[in-house]
Amino acid sequence: QARAPKGRCFCVDKGVNMVPPKQIEKVEIIPASRSCKTQEIVVTLKNSTEQKCLNPESKFTQKYIMKAVEKRSLQKK
Amino acid sequence: QARAPKGRCFCVDKGVNMVPPKQIEKVEIIPASRSCKTQEIVVTLKNSTEQKCLNPESKFTQKYIMKAVEKRSLQKK
Repeated sequence: QARAPKGRCFCVDKGVNMVPPKQIEKVEIIPASRSCKTQEIVVTLKNSTEQKCLNPESKFTQKYIMKAVEKRSLQKK
Repeated sequence: QARAPKGRCFCVDKGVNMVPPKQIEKVEIIPASRSCKTQEIVVTLKNSTEQKCLNPESKFTQKYIMKAVEKRSLQKK
């Protein structure tokens, strides 16, 4: 039950440490699966639908993703 | 520069509070944009490519997404 058509990981390396937030169309968190043993974080950029792998351990990635779930609860206060 | 073809939000409500992690193919974080003023978290399910909106404020969502960026750094210790 391959996930990516070619049945392998999408990211061939750790990925970039950051991308300009304004250029982010969306961020995909792809959990590990049979076809790819590691979890991957893939960002799709605006204006180009280009996709880049994001290093899950970079400060930027951690901050960006944490903010995604923090944001609304902060606004409520 | 509409994001979703119909130029509106993908999620019509807050979304579900949780989905069984094993059924998750991927989770998309879609930042607010001109076509949709709110950030959305959309989960694609395995075996059906069905997509569901995930409530960003639910405990499950917050835990799942935080784990996505925590995981690797914990393994290293």
